[in-house]
Order: sequence, then C-alpha cells, then structure tokens
Amino acid sequence: CPLPRAETSLSRLVRRLLSARRSLDLCIFSFSCPQLARAVHLLHRRGVRVRLVTDAQYMGLHGSQIGRLRHAGIQVRHDQHSGYMHHKFAIVDRRMLITGSLNWTTQAIQSNRENVLVVDDAACVKPFLDEFERIWEEYNPANYSF
Amino acid sequence: CPLPRAETSLSRLVRRLLSARRSLDLCIFSFSCPQLARAVHLLHRRGVRVRLVTDAQYMGLHGSQIGRLRHAGIQVRHDQHSGYMHHKFAIVDRRMLITGSLNWTTQAIQSNRENVLVVDDAACVKPFLDEFERIWEEYNPANYSF
Repeated sequence: CPLPRAETSLSRLVRRLLSARRSLDLCIFSFSCPQLARAVHLLHRRGVRVRLVTDAQYMGLHGSQIGRLRHAGIQVRHDQHSGYMHHKFAIVDRRMLITGSLNWTTQAIQSNRENVLVVDDAACVKPFLDEFERIWEEYNPANYSF
Repeated sequence: CPLPRAETSLSRLVRRLLSARRSLDLCIFSFSCPQLARAVHLLHRRGVRVRLVTDAQYMGLHGSQIGRLRHAGIQVRHDQHSGYMHHKFAIVDRRMLITGSLNWTTQAIQSNRENVLVVDDAACVKPFLDEFERIWEEYNPANYSF
C-alpha cells in the first residue's frame, strides 16, 4: 500500500492501469487529467473492457475528459441525483483496487496533498467490486425515471 | 475493509474514532459534520492526544467545525499553499487507519456516494503515519515564511 506524493505518482498510477488485461472498472468523480484519459483510451483500444462511472455535475466542467472517452466508444454512466458520485477508484482485472483521495484532475495531481492506495487483498477489493456493479446498474439509462 | 454506504456509516465511523485510547491524528480537508466534531472533542476531553491538520481555504467555510475544536483546546494546523490539503484520513492510536473519499461534511454523509476503508495492517498504516508527521511539521507555524 504505497502512499505516493501526488506529484511523483502519476507515472506509477498510469503503469498500474496499463497492467489491465481484461477489464477496467472506474468510478471517478472528476476526470480531467489528459495522461490518465490517454491510458484509459489505450486500454480500450487494446480490447480491455472499460466501464466508467462519473458525476453528472462534474462531467461537463472545463477540461473534462468524459466527452472524449465517450467519443472513443467507452461506456460511460453517470448519477441522476443531486449528491455527488464522489468515489475515485479503479479496479483492474477485478483483482487490483486503486483508491484514495485523488481526483483524476491535473490540479489535484500537480497541486494537492493526496493519497492513493493500491490493494489486491480480495476481502478489500470485493466491497468495491460490489459497489461498482450496484452503481453501474443504478445508473443504467434504462432505469432513468424522467 | 468494509465499504459502508455513507448514509449508514456515520455511527460506525464514530464508534471507530471513540475507540482511541492514546492518540488521534487527523488529516481532514473539509470538516463540518457536528457529530464527528463531537466525537473528536470528547476524545480530547478524555485526555487522548488529538492533532488535526486541515485545509486553509476550507477551514473558514460555513459550518466548519475547526474554530469550535480550536476553541476547545485541540491543536490544529493548516496548509500554507494554494493547492488543497485534500487528505481525509484518521489514525487511531497509531495503529488503525480510516481513509477514503469521504469528506467530514454533513453533505457528504447525507447525499454522496462515498467509501471509507478501515485498515490495521502495519504496512498500510505506516506511510500514512509518515505523511501525517511530515505534514504536521511542514505546517508548524514556526515554519511560516511570511
């Protein structure tokens, strides 16, 4: 469980993501970092199954990478409620959890004090896998109530 | 490592905090939740050594509990830079780490999708202990440059 300083951890985070072979499940509150978006896009092009959940109020902010990722064909779902979908975690191949305080924004990576945990203990990963599947279904457009 | 839904986890979080016997080290970006402030205050009154680090830009926002905790005699330090002190973690008795996406705000607890990890594996706790001590010294008023 490393706790890298955010300013030095981007390349390590990218490397962890790029280790995905089968799936990448993402719950990312705010996603504006181009380097992280490039890694996600690359995985999608390699045939890794990428699913991305984000926050409806933040997905349209200046610099957001969500539109670009959707345009590339990546499945994106977002919340429908007034509170925030405030998670910032990734699950690689359903086995490795990457989570912490870090939003996937350039501002956070360059300027903030942040933490990122990398966990592969199954008992820790399981609740996040369950939360991801719960959110993925809950935010399915088929369930929209308007 | 439970991942409780935020709306049901407040009492569990309070119970974990109240288990502190010797020390409570807090790095909390935004702190406005009265119930959590009451728990911290209670520990201070019990003689537990409480140290609190927070973000300078958020400590003065409406509803912030920082002033109240300082008034009660709890040591509080804050960052001096333009980026955010964005951690949201607590270390109980230097052994149990509580960390995640959850800001200690009523809005986050009531309205958001959040996660909180509770970890007592020493290899995971150590980097957070080190980060706390590093920040605590860095934000020492004796080191102010103005």
